[in-house]
Amino acid sequence: MMQSKTISDIVIGRMPLYLRALQRMLNEQRQIASSQELGKRLGISAAQIRKDLSQFGEFGKQGTGYHIDYLVNKIQEILQVDRVWDVALVGAGDMGHALASYQGFNHRGFQIKLIFDNDPEKLGSYIGDYKVMDIADMNEEIHKAGIKIAMLAVPAAGAQEVANRLIKAGIKAVLNYAPVNLKVPVGVYVQYIDPAIHLQRMTYYLKSENDL
Amino acid sequence: MMQSKTISDIVIGRMPLYLRALQRMLNEQRQIASSQELGKRLGISAAQIRKDLSQFGEFGKQGTGYHIDYLVNKIQEILQVDRVWDVALVGAGDMGHALASYQGFNHRGFQIKLIFDNDPEKLGSYIGDYKVMDIADMNEEIHKAGIKIAMLAVPAAGAQEVANRLIKAGIKAVLNYAPVNLKVPVGVYVQYIDPAIHLQRMTYYLKSENDL
Repeated sequence: MMQSKTISDIVIGRMPLYLRALQRMLNEQRQIASSQELGKRLGISAAQIRKDLSQFGEFGKQGTGYHIDYLVNKIQEILQVDRVWDVALVGAGDMGHALASYQGFNHRGFQIKLIFDNDPEKLGSYIGDYKVMDIADMNEEIHKAGIKIAMLAVPAAGAQEVANRLIKAGIKAVLNYAPVNLKVPVGVYVQYIDPAIHLQRMTYYLKSENDL
Repeated sequence: MMQSKTISDIVIGRMPLYLRALQRMLNEQRQIASSQELGKRLGISAAQIRKDLSQFGEFGKQGTGYHIDYLVNKIQEILQVDRVWDVALVGAGDMGHALASYQGFNHRGFQIKLIFDNDPEKLGSYIGDYKVMDIADMNEEIHKAGIKIAMLAVPAAGAQEVANRLIKAGIKAVLNYAPVNLKVPVGVYVQYIDPAIHLQRMTYYLKSENDL
C-alpha cells in the first residue's frame, strides 16, 4: 500500500490509547462518543483527538460524535490489529510465564505462538499450550512460522544479543521487558515496558501531600 | 509546597521519558545534551522539549545545551524521585515474582518493601528478601509502613476489590498490571502497564511490508 502522507509517530502512539478507551466504552454498551468525552477519559484535548483522527479520514460528523463501533473498526484497520498477529516470546522465567498467561492480549490483535529459553531445565516444559523451545532453534522456528513480532523477557545482560538473533530471524517489532536500551537497525521497531516511567509519572502528584 | 501554576498532565507524562533518556546519556559518559538530540532520541520535537522544561525553570542557556547531570537532578526533584519510595506489591504470582526481581527500579526512585497475596500456599514464602504476607493484614501493614504506592499484579477479576482495599490502607498511586480499568476516588492515581498498547503502536509500521 502506498501511503499518501507520513503521519507523525506521536499521532500513531496515541491511536492505541484511543482504541483502548473506545473498546472500554463498547464494553459499557455505549454507542456514540464525543471527542470531548474521549479527551476527558484520556487527558488529551478534544481538539487534539479530532485533529489526530482527521489525518486518517472523516470518522464523525460535526456535532454528532463518533459511532464507537465504526471508529473501533477503523482504528483496528489503521493499526493493523483487525487481524491476529502471532508473537514469539523469548524468556520462560517469571515474566515469560506471566506474559504467556496474560489475558490482556485477547481481542487486541496478538497471540503468543512460540516460546524460547536457553535454560536446559526449562526446555520441553509447557507454558499453557506451548512447549518451551531451545533458543538455538529460534532462527529456524521463527522463519518457519513467519513471525514478525517478539516479546523479550530475558535478563538485561543478554537482551541485546537475543535481540540481534531475533532480528536475523526476521523479527521486525520487539517489545522489550529488559531494562536496557536496544540498538536495532532501521526498519525494526522497539517498544519498552518500563514500570518506573509510570511510577515516576504518579510521584509528581504525591509531592504536595508529603509537604503538607 | 504551594504550586504557583498548574502544569498539564501531558507535560508531566513526558518528564519521566526525558529523565530516562538523560540517564542513559549519563551512562554513556555524556555531559551536555541539546534539545535537538534529546528530541531525536525520543521522537519529540526539540521545541516541545524546550517548552516542557521551561515550565519548571531555566535549565539551559540558549545555544549551549543542557548539562545532563544538572538536568537529571532537577527532573528527579520535580518528579520527587530524588528519594526512594517504598512500594507495596499485591500478587505473588508470576508477574509479582518478576516485579520483585526486576532490576529496572534501581536508581529510579522505587523499592518493593511489602508483598501480599491471598493464597495460603504462598503466605510465609520468600520472594528475594521479602516474606509474602496475608492480604488480610494489608491494611495494617501498609498503614504501619506509611506506604503510598502499590503495584497490582492480581487477576483481572479481583483487581478492583484489591484496589479498593489498597486505597483504604492509604495508597495514593497504583500501578495496575491487571487488564482492567480501575475506578478510584479523586486524589488517587492509576497507571496501567498494557503491553498490547505497545504492540499496536508497532504493528502500524509493519503494515506496508505485509502489503508488498
